[in-house]
Amino acid sequence: MTSVKINAKIKSSINQKIMSHQSVTQQITPKYIDSLQEKISDIKEQHDGKILILTHANPDGDAIGSAYGLYLGFKSLGLTPTVSCIDEVPTAFKFVDTKDTFTQTPNFNDFKNIVFVDCGDKKLTRFDKNHPEILSDQKFKINIDHHPSNDNFGDLNLVITNASSAAEIVYYLWKKMGVEMNSALATSLLLGIYTDTGGFVHQNTTPDSYTAAAELVELGGSVSKISQNVFRSNDLKQLKLWGKVLEELHVTDEGAAIVGVHKDDYLSLGATRQDLGGVIDLINSMPEVQYSVMLSEDEKGNVKASLRTRKDDVNVKAIAEKFGGGGHVKAAGFTVPQGHLKKEVKWKIVTDA
Amino acid sequence: MTSVKINAKIKSSINQKIMSHQSVTQQITPKYIDSLQEKISDIKEQHDGKILILTHANPDGDAIGSAYGLYLGFKSLGLTPTVSCIDEVPTAFKFVDTKDTFTQTPNFNDFKNIVFVDCGDKKLTRFDKNHPEILSDQKFKINIDHHPSNDNFGDLNLVITNASSAAEIVYYLWKKMGVEMNSALATSLLLGIYTDTGGFVHQNTTPDSYTAAAELVELGGSVSKISQNVFRSNDLKQLKLWGKVLEELHVTDEGAAIVGVHKDDYLSLGATRQDLGGVIDLINSMPEVQYSVMLSEDEKGNVKASLRTRKDDVNVKAIAEKFGGGGHVKAAGFTVPQGHLKKEVKWKIVTDA
Repeated sequence: MTSVKINAKIKSSINQKIMSHQSVTQQITPKYIDSLQEKISDIKEQHDGKILILTHANPDGDAIGSAYGLYLGFKSLGLTPTVSCIDEVPTAFKFVDTKDTFTQTPNFNDFKNIVFVDCGDKKLTRFDKNHPEILSDQKFKINIDHHPSNDNFGDLNLVITNASSAAEIVYYLWKKMGVEMNSALATSLLLGIYTDTGGFVHQNTTPDSYTAAAELVELGGSVSKISQNVFRSNDLKQLKLWGKVLEELHVTDEGAAIVGVHKDDYLSLGATRQDLGGVIDLINSMPEVQYSVMLSEDEKGNVKASLRTRKDDVNVKAIAEKFGGGGHVKAAGFTVPQGHLKKEVKWKIVTDA
Repeated sequence: MTSVKINAKIKSSINQKIMSHQSVTQQITPKYIDSLQEKISDIKEQHDGKILILTHANPDGDAIGSAYGLYLGFKSLGLTPTVSCIDEVPTAFKFVDTKDTFTQTPNFNDFKNIVFVDCGDKKLTRFDKNHPEILSDQKFKINIDHHPSNDNFGDLNLVITNASSAAEIVYYLWKKMGVEMNSALATSLLLGIYTDTGGFVHQNTTPDSYTAAAELVELGGSVSKISQNVFRSNDLKQLKLWGKVLEELHVTDEGAAIVGVHKDDYLSLGATRQDLGGVIDLINSMPEVQYSVMLSEDEKGNVKASLRTRKDDVNVKAIAEKFGGGGHVKAAGFTVPQGHLKKEVKWKIVTDA
């Protein structure tokens, strides 16, 4: 009898495994589609077709890509959507901006229906601080996301945690609903998939992600446009700054790659601290390194630290938290207010206070 | 009556267009499959299953990936294949090397049947110089390639010019033949697709390429393994060398990014000229640049030039040819024998002679 029990256990664990490997499209249920379609009809009839699409503050490629992918899809379904984010669209992602919709200051009174996209937490839009009503029962909240931290805070939730990106979910959603997708929509969604997978490289890139990419390229989406805008656009002062940083690179006996950047290092080249973006990932490309740290003085007299690791057993979030910072296990950061860098044998932070 | 003619013309041009957009799998005809299967039976019966797989000298990721993809497939079909290249397998691609097959010095007498893979020209293996018999009628030549320059030099040709890579062709070939593909085979073929598309970015990345990637990942292929080995593995001396190069970067009034590297620049860091690999692509990431040139002294007293462009209307192959070099429209190079670099206002080549 014992063996029967064990078999049942094994069977149930296999079933669970299969469940967690369900394709993105399988997780978009007919019930969900029906509810969303009903909602869309309601928005058309009762609310002049008005729907607000919000994404998280400090938007990345998936935030912008999925938001515009939703915008173009809702538009082709006959709605009048608005895209909004508390921060502006970063230059690298501006090429998908349709220029006829984006606002940092929506009039929330205009909208009964709000989509939260790529928001692992309902507070990530940061609009709720001054506009708590967006999270109240007065609003109907559609929640489309792929973060495991998402607690289904919406009234209609589509949270698929094994999707590479929110954009991948939006793609399979529109496909299932028969939405006509043009090349602009395809490129928006590709932007989300491409950036959240680190260019189809990170472990979250599933066969579904590649299949979505295949079909989006077929629809006229352009990955080369994305990569040129997002990853491959550097200018001379930036490359010279990277050169300066790389020349000063140091690996400690413990295997940490460390580099410090003075304010003058970038100011003397006519560059800004933002021009350092990306160099930490290049530094962290050394296989023998445990983790990488870039310390850089900002223009306001603080020292910012960026940490990266590729090692499974190193948690840079924990390191950053010791200094009052935070982030992810593989990428984190902290700030030392009113600090400056002094070079001794290694770079270290000296606090003014 | 004229309109009928015009219609016929339009129709034929449409047909032609459809032809040129045929999927890779459509271009692998039943006739080809029959001929190859017949050949495989013949090799088993008449030649102890022995087949030699050659790829081009100075092998890139597609050369190695497609060769090992063929090797593993032929093996599962019951043959005894050997992989050979006149140059050794570069370190970055060694992770797909099965270690039980590769040779730089095959005994050509052992092989009646030779596969040439990823060879845009029959002479690109460079074995023919000392072993002209490999191109003679004594050998049965199977030619699998994706370069438009390929003139169908084989006895059995599979040249599909809209495939991203030779590896993509091999994938669809094995799929069509029902070959069982394991994760090692899948990773080999992904290596070819990934490197020849610049990480799924270049214009040659078609929906077929993404579909192949989706299915190869499903079979256990690992893109993150590839990217870690191929693109994201740098060491300290290499990054410091890149830093030195980037600091010296110069953009001419005509929009050419130019940099020169002295022998001492790398020797003083304990690095080699090979450690410069990749930096030219970083340099060429500047959107405003027409083309990029890196001049570097090698250890034998020559100056090598690497040229890159991302502009549609710039042909760096033509520039390289003026100096006796060659390559592709977007990536080319040339060598100035017995030269060295002298820095004046710009970098230029001074010939000793």
